[in-house]
Amino acid sequence: MFEEAESDPTLTAAEADRHEARLRTALLKAQYARLQDPKRSLLIVAAGIDGAGKGATINLLNEWMDPRHIRTLAFGLPTVTEAARPDLWRYWNALPANGRTGIVFGSWYMPLVMEGAQKHPNAEKMAELAEEVLRFEATLAANGVQILKLWFHLSKDAQHQRVDRLLKDPDTAWQVTTQDRKVRKHYDQIRAAGMDIINQTHTRHAPWVIIPSADERMRTVRTGEAVLSAISRASAPRVDRPLRIVSRRAKPSDRLAGLDYAAHIEKDEYDTELRQWQARLARAVRHKRFKDLSLVLAFEGQDAAGKGGAIRRVTHALDARRYVITPVSAPTAEELSYPYLWRFWRKVPALGDIAIFDRSWYGRVLAERVEGYAAPADWKRAYDEINDFERQLTDQGVVLLKFWLAVTKDEQLRRFRDREQSPFKQFKITPDDWRNRRKWNAYADAANEMFARTDTPNAPWHVLSANDKRHARVSVLAQTVLALEAALKKKKD
Amino acid sequence: MFEEAESDPTLTAAEADRHEARLRTALLKAQYARLQDPKRSLLIVAAGIDGAGKGATINLLNEWMDPRHIRTLAFGLPTVTEAARPDLWRYWNALPANGRTGIVFGSWYMPLVMEGAQKHPNAEKMAELAEEVLRFEATLAANGVQILKLWFHLSKDAQHQRVDRLLKDPDTAWQVTTQDRKVRKHYDQIRAAGMDIINQTHTRHAPWVIIPSADERMRTVRTGEAVLSAISRASAPRVDRPLRIVSRRAKPSDRLAGLDYAAHIEKDEYDTELRQWQARLARAVRHKRFKDLSLVLAFEGQDAAGKGGAIRRVTHALDARRYVITPVSAPTAEELSYPYLWRFWRKVPALGDIAIFDRSWYGRVLAERVEGYAAPADWKRAYDEINDFERQLTDQGVVLLKFWLAVTKDEQLRRFRDREQSPFKQFKITPDDWRNRRKWNAYADAANEMFARTDTPNAPWHVLSANDKRHARVSVLAQTVLALEAALKKKKD
Repeated sequence: MFEEAESDPTLTAAEADRHEARLRTALLKAQYARLQDPKRSLLIVAAGIDGAGKGATINLLNEWMDPRHIRTLAFGLPTVTEAARPDLWRYWNALPANGRTGIVFGSWYMPLVMEGAQKHPNAEKMAELAEEVLRFEATLAANGVQILKLWFHLSKDAQHQRVDRLLKDPDTAWQVTTQDRKVRKHYDQIRAAGMDIINQTHTRHAPWVIIPSADERMRTVRTGEAVLSAISRASAPRVDRPLRIVSRRAKPSDRLAGLDYAAHIEKDEYDTELRQWQARLARAVRHKRFKDLSLVLAFEGQDAAGKGGAIRRVTHALDARRYVITPVSAPTAEELSYPYLWRFWRKVPALGDIAIFDRSWYGRVLAERVEGYAAPADWKRAYDEINDFERQLTDQGVVLLKFWLAVTKDEQLRRFRDREQSPFKQFKITPDDWRNRRKWNAYADAANEMFARTDTPNAPWHVLSANDKRHARVSVLAQTVLALEAALKKKKD
Repeated sequence: MFEEAESDPTLTAAEADRHEARLRTALLKAQYARLQDPKRSLLIVAAGIDGAGKGATINLLNEWMDPRHIRTLAFGLPTVTEAARPDLWRYWNALPANGRTGIVFGSWYMPLVMEGAQKHPNAEKMAELAEEVLRFEATLAANGVQILKLWFHLSKDAQHQRVDRLLKDPDTAWQVTTQDRKVRKHYDQIRAAGMDIINQTHTRHAPWVIIPSADERMRTVRTGEAVLSAISRASAPRVDRPLRIVSRRAKPSDRLAGLDYAAHIEKDEYDTELRQWQARLARAVRHKRFKDLSLVLAFEGQDAAGKGGAIRRVTHALDARRYVITPVSAPTAEELSYPYLWRFWRKVPALGDIAIFDRSWYGRVLAERVEGYAAPADWKRAYDEINDFERQLTDQGVVLLKFWLAVTKDEQLRRFRDREQSPFKQFKITPDDWRNRRKWNAYADAANEMFARTDTPNAPWHVLSANDKRHARVSVLAQTVLALEAALKKKKD
C-alpha cells in the first residue's frame, strides 16, 4: 500500500502552482458551503512517519482555508487532568461543532502506533486497541462526525535525507524533534506498524489516505485534494462497521410491573437507617483508596418519583467540593451541534470525584424515543453506544449505579395534585408532566426495554419502588454504599 | 459587629414554619423573575466560622429554589491546572451566566482567612490581599455580577457544643472536618480574622451579611432573607470603590502618525533574519525554564495590516501542541451573558503554554468604542480593568507582548483591492472592512488613547510599521524573542 508514496513522487513548481490556485478556491468554497451544514462536522487525523512534514502541511491548510473555522487539536502525553479520566475523554471534549473542522495531532492512534513500533508488537494487544478505535470512530460517524485520516509517508532514504538536511544547519535543527530522530532509527518498525494499523482500521466511514511526503509540493497538493474530496461530500458515508456490544435479547420482561410497590419503612426505622447509611457513605468517599475510583450515579424514573429527594439524601453525606449534580433536560442548541453523548462525556468526573445525574444519557431511549425526537435508527443504536460509554467509565475505575425510581400511576396522580396545591412546589409541575403521564404505557415499555438492553454487570440497573419515599431513599443509599465498599475492597486486593 | 450572632439567637418551630412558607414562595418567584434579566447574575459567597453549618444551609437553599438555575461552585486547594494560572482564573471560569445564581465555597477570601488566622497575621499582607479582592469584586460588579457575601457566625460556646455533639456519635462524627476541629481550637483567631476581613471588604456593591448560625432554624431563615433581599433588587448597586490602576495621562500623543512607514527589509536579508529569529524563538520556548513562564501575544492593527501573516511566522517556530491561536471577533450570545473579560480569562494559557490572540480584549476600547457597542462608561472603565487583567497575567509569569501593526491609508486601499482580485483572498474582505475604513480617524484616535493608557512596563505595546510586511514580521519575531530571552535570564537569576 506504500508503493506509490515510497517512490517519492514529485511535482514541478509550475504544476504545483496550477493545482494550488484551483485547490485554494475550491477548498474555501467547500468550507463555506459546509459551514451551513448543521448536521455534520469534519475531523481530520494527521498521522504517519515522523519527519514527513505533516505539521507544515497542516499549517498550510490553515492558510488556504478560513482558519477561524478550523481548530487544530494537538495532544501529547495525557495531562494530570486527562489521565484521571477514560482515554477517549479528551477527544470527546475537543470535538468540533457541526459545520466545523478539526485537525487532530496525537490522536487516538498513538497507543496503536506506540505498540506497533515495538521490536515485538503484541498482536493481541494491537487487535484490542484497534477494536477500541473502531468502536469510537463508528460512534462518531453514526452521530454526524465525518472522519478523514491522513498517513504522511515517504521512503527511508528520503526521510533520512530530510532529517540530515535540517540537522546540518543550527538554525533549522530545532525542527527535528527527538521523536523524529528516533523514527529515523526505527523507520522499518514504524512502517510495519503503519501498515498493520491502516489494514485494521480502514473503513468506509473513516478512510485512510496515504500522502506521499518526500516532495513538499506533492505533499501539499495531495493533502489539499484529500481534504477537498472529504469536505465536498454531499452526505455522510454509511457506517460500515457498526457497534455491536450486547446481543439483542428476547422480548424484555416487565420489570416495572414486577415490583413490590407496598414496600415501605416506618419513620423511626428510617431515621436510624438513613443516618447509618449516610455515615457509611461518608466514610467510603473519604477512604484513601477512593482517590483511585470515582462515583457516578444516574437517576431516572417517572415524574414526581422523588429523584431530587433521593439525591439530596446522598449528597448530605458528601463533601460539596467533590461532587457535581447535573440536571439533564432537553439539549441546548449548542449541545445539538455535537454527537449525542458529547454533553455527558464532558461531565465525566476525575478519579476521586463524584457526578450525579438527575436524568441522564438514557433520555435518548426514553423521552427522545417516545416523543419522536430521535429517529428509530438513532435510539436503537443508542443501547450499544451507551453500553460502550459506560464500559469505558467502569474500565477507568468509575463505580457506576443507575437507579430507576418507580411509582404507580395512582401515586403519581396524588403527588401531581399535591404539587399543584403547594405554593413552593408548583414550579415542579408543568404541562409536560401531564402530557408525559398520558403516555404512561409507552414510557413503561421504553423503560423495560432499556433495562433489558443496558443492565450490564459493570453498570447495573437498580429498579426500586418509590411509592414510599423513605424506602426508595434508604435503598439508593444502601446500594451505593455496598457497591462502593465492594470496589474499595477490590482495589485493596 | 458579631454581637447579635454571638448571642446565639433562636427561633421556635412555629416561627420558623411561618417564615419558611413565605420565604420559599417569595424566593422562587424572585428567582424566576431574575432569570429574565439578561444583564445580571448573582454570586453568593459562603464563608464564616467552620462548623457553623453553612454547607447544610446552602443545600437547603437549593431545595427551596429551583436548583436547575443555581450552581454550587466549590473550590479547594488549587489543582495542578489551576495552580498553573493566576489565582483568580478559576473564579472567572466558574462565573454564572446572567440570570443565573452561583454559590461559592472556598472563595477568593481563602488566602485572607488563612493569613488572618495566623498567630501573628501580617497586616501589610492582609491589606494587599484585601486590595486584590476589592479590585476583583469591583470589576465583577461593574460588569453585571451582583455579589452577596454571607458570614456564618456563632459564639465560641455554641460552636464547641455543636462540634462535640456531632463527634460523640460515630454516625455523625464524619460531619466534623479536620478544618472544623482546627477552628474549634483557634476560634478566637478566626473570629478576629473575620472581623478584619469584613471591615476591609464590605462595600455597597458586595456587602457582607452576618448570619447567626447557632440555631439551625434561625440560620436558615436569615440566609433565606438575605438571599431574597439580594435577588429581588431591581437594579445593580452603584460600584462604590471603582478600580483605579493608572493615572490618567494628558492628551495622548499620536503614535501612529509618528511611525517611519518607509521602514523595509530586502528579500535576501529577510530570509536570513527570519530564519535566525525563528531558530532563537524555537530554542527559547523549548528551554527548560520556559515551563515556569508562558507567552501571550496580542495582535491588533488596521484591517489588512498583515496580522495573520505575522502570526504564522511566529507559529512556524512553535510546537503545535503548545500553542493556541484565538481569533477574536464579535462576542457570541453566550459570551455576552458574562462580564466582558470572561471570554479572555478562559483562554489564559497554563505555564509552559502559548496563547496568541488575533485581535484581543482591546476590542472594548477600539471597535466597541468606535461603533458604539459599549457605553462610554464601559469602555472608559476598561483601561483600568485591562491593566489589572494584564498585571495578574504577568505576575503569574506570563510574558505578554502587544503588537499594533500599522499601515497607512493608501497601503490599506492597495491591499483591499488586491484581496478583491484574488479568488482565495476574497473571504478576507467584507463590507465591514470598507465601513471601518471610513472611520479611519476615529479608530486612530482610539488606538492612540489606548497606547497612552495601557502601555505598561509589564505589558508594553509594540507599535510597528507594517507597510512592509517583511519588516513587520521580523520586528514581531525579534521583540518576542528578546522579551522571552530576558524573562528566561531573569528566571535564572
